[in-house]
Amino acid sequence: MEHLIIIGAAAAGTKAAAKVRRENKDLKITLFTEEEYVSYSACGIPFYIEGEFDDYKELIEYTPSEFEKDINVKVYTFHRVLKISPESNKISVGNLISGEVFEISYTKLLIATGASPIKADIPGADAKNIFTLRNINDAIAIKKAVKKSKTAVIIGGGYIGIEILEAFFKQGLKTRLIEKQNQIMSVLDSEIADNLKEMIENERPNSIITSDSVKKFIANSKGELEKIELESGKIIEADLALIALGVKPNIELAQKAGIQIGETGAIKVNKHMQTNIHNIYAAGDCCEKNHIITNKPVWIPLGSTANKEGRVAGLTLSGEKASFEGVLGSAVTKFFGINISLTGLSEKAAEKQGYDVVTVTIQSKDKAGYMEGAKTISIKMIADKKTKRLLGAQCIGYGDADKRINIIASALTAKMTVKEYINIDISYAPPFSRAIDITTVAAYKLDKLLEKHT
Amino acid sequence: MEHLIIIGAAAAGTKAAAKVRRENKDLKITLFTEEEYVSYSACGIPFYIEGEFDDYKELIEYTPSEFEKDINVKVYTFHRVLKISPESNKISVGNLISGEVFEISYTKLLIATGASPIKADIPGADAKNIFTLRNINDAIAIKKAVKKSKTAVIIGGGYIGIEILEAFFKQGLKTRLIEKQNQIMSVLDSEIADNLKEMIENERPNSIITSDSVKKFIANSKGELEKIELESGKIIEADLALIALGVKPNIELAQKAGIQIGETGAIKVNKHMQTNIHNIYAAGDCCEKNHIITNKPVWIPLGSTANKEGRVAGLTLSGEKASFEGVLGSAVTKFFGINISLTGLSEKAAEKQGYDVVTVTIQSKDKAGYMEGAKTISIKMIADKKTKRLLGAQCIGYGDADKRINIIASALTAKMTVKEYINIDISYAPPFSRAIDITTVAAYKLDKLLEKHT
Repeated sequence: MEHLIIIGAAAAGTKAAAKVRRENKDLKITLFTEEEYVSYSACGIPFYIEGEFDDYKELIEYTPSEFEKDINVKVYTFHRVLKISPESNKISVGNLISGEVFEISYTKLLIATGASPIKADIPGADAKNIFTLRNINDAIAIKKAVKKSKTAVIIGGGYIGIEILEAFFKQGLKTRLIEKQNQIMSVLDSEIADNLKEMIENERPNSIITSDSVKKFIANSKGELEKIELESGKIIEADLALIALGVKPNIELAQKAGIQIGETGAIKVNKHMQTNIHNIYAAGDCCEKNHIITNKPVWIPLGSTANKEGRVAGLTLSGEKASFEGVLGSAVTKFFGINISLTGLSEKAAEKQGYDVVTVTIQSKDKAGYMEGAKTISIKMIADKKTKRLLGAQCIGYGDADKRINIIASALTAKMTVKEYINIDISYAPPFSRAIDITTVAAYKLDKLLEKHT
Repeated sequence: MEHLIIIGAAAAGTKAAAKVRRENKDLKITLFTEEEYVSYSACGIPFYIEGEFDDYKELIEYTPSEFEKDINVKVYTFHRVLKISPESNKISVGNLISGEVFEISYTKLLIATGASPIKADIPGADAKNIFTLRNINDAIAIKKAVKKSKTAVIIGGGYIGIEILEAFFKQGLKTRLIEKQNQIMSVLDSEIADNLKEMIENERPNSIITSDSVKKFIANSKGELEKIELESGKIIEADLALIALGVKPNIELAQKAGIQIGETGAIKVNKHMQTNIHNIYAAGDCCEKNHIITNKPVWIPLGSTANKEGRVAGLTLSGEKASFEGVLGSAVTKFFGINISLTGLSEKAAEKQGYDVVTVTIQSKDKAGYMEGAKTISIKMIADKKTKRLLGAQCIGYGDADKRINIIASALTAKMTVKEYINIDISYAPPFSRAIDITTVAAYKLDKLLEKHT
């Protein structure tokens, strides 16, 4: 009997399981996870900590037993896969509770091991109330600590850092975010990031420290975090710390089994989510992806991508034709009312890839100026001088920023030139945009710059 | 000396004037309009009537004298162009106040005469307080009448009808909208329109009557509108009526001058906004447009299009390369919190054009379900069986409907297939969408249907 084993039960693993089951009623499917929970929204965790909703169960789509029943899948929670043996089509599994170790055979294997937070190698990091954030148990522990804390630091100014900064403020904590680089949100170009930092500090003064990092964590006599010493010598009181330095792909298991790791350090898969071993597949944050603009491998781990890759893996495993063409790194987040969104290449990323670029940054209202609630957004758009194609965009502001980014993501997928972008018939009514949308106005300006260079 | 005469001072005329002036400081530019105002947002008028803002001047970007000064253009308000004589490059103009008639020569002429409301040929339509809505003076008159009225009817269930229905309710009028067809919003497919009607009637019970029309207007002894008799025999009290039966292109002047009228009944222009007469151009609502999907002429008069055509006319008039590729009929409007948006072909329009279509209609939350304020939207997406290309979409609901339509408009411009659409990397965070956007989910389903038909 065919037996599909899936390692990992977050977005990619559970999506693939559901898809395979829908296509094939007979196949045996077994799912292993080290965690207590399966099928939950990791991206929703900051909003649980923030207090948007009180019960972490809201994040969970299926409990393990619901998943077993609905999808007819055998789920092993608290089980760690210790070894993959492709030559014998077996894996070795350890029960994290009983300590028992056993082997089990597969005919097909899907690796969906995800990614793990990067740990900080900082003296004193073993004090109580220092956290990283990845799964529901992390979230529950952090939320508990928040209730007992008054001050906090966040180390790292990426998506999670910014989202948790809002969450901690909403929970009443006096919070500082520490970013080693001279800008927050390294995916943004520096002037956009600086503009964003200014907006964040208008909302919450002195909440961000850039170009500085933690020298050591200082605990009280009970071993609980009390304060933080920065490289600059500054001392910051903190009952609670979140280390949000990003994540790294969980590839050890695959690597030891001889599965090819790509140049980005994540598992190499083709468009059908197949690894170099014929009956082993991989999907989600543990895999590298193709970048739609550069056609080169990148590692941009995002929940939406993991979900899509899980679907394609599930279809491929079912013998269907399906492919995942790649990513643009489209992302969106928010800090109080400020929306932050991007897609494609930043100026710096484009230059690193050897593109000769023109860029335009403009500010405009997101609606007709006479409409109540019209708010200013800033957009930066980047185009390639040679092909006159759009390469990417970043949009921030109190208004509908993310809305614009998705129009551009669609255009980037189609490899549109700036002139083609201008021709998009974007819907207009005064409550929704200006007569000529801000992205079209930016494209007009890019077009003019490109004409000059012709 | 070169002399550009522009007839019409709404979106297309004023945009072209500004563009020409930016490119060419020396050219003489003269602008004629029958109206008192130039350069105003016609699309904003319903929101002025609604009370979103109190001063109609908010709608005006430039007064005639500001426009004259800023752009260095001679503006004649209250002047009607009576005749175009291409053989002598002259126009004949009547001063609507003094009655004076004079001739003036052009080297180039831009016709931007716009469109006019369709008049209803209904007995009693000469009663007081029966209006059509097109320009600022109409708006001022209607707003004045609203203040004195208690009950109103709107005749016609298109964009303007729906927007004014909200405006009248917000102004405290007991209002009924009468639509002759068996559905409102004829641009939508009937099931979406019916769903919309239900939502509107949930907001404001008994506000819409379909499949009925006005038999006669009944005035009181002072000649003021008092009630309306419908074909069904129903009598409705109304102090105020707005006739919103749509618009027709103002082409008489062009037609008499031998300028070619297209099969849609609007002025035929090429991509550069040139008519069949070498030094006569046309732009805006008086022109027909190319439909991006069908590549056939259509007449879809919208403010955003007029603005873009004005720009292209201005660039062409300045000797620059520029072209307007066409429209998708993308549009958006709202009724209280309900957003209504569409792009491309409806199912019925696609079938009329001979496409063999598959369609999918789904409902989903616009954000992650656990986020406060997540609201349901419905989307219908239409694809062509033969080419597997997307043809259009309609999206309605209390949530972010318009946002989705613009992603699809971008995809339609790029002539994307359904499979290509699936690959768009749409940005995701729980406050903005679900992990897989509703449009991607709809595309998954379309893809499955298309596979079946392969």
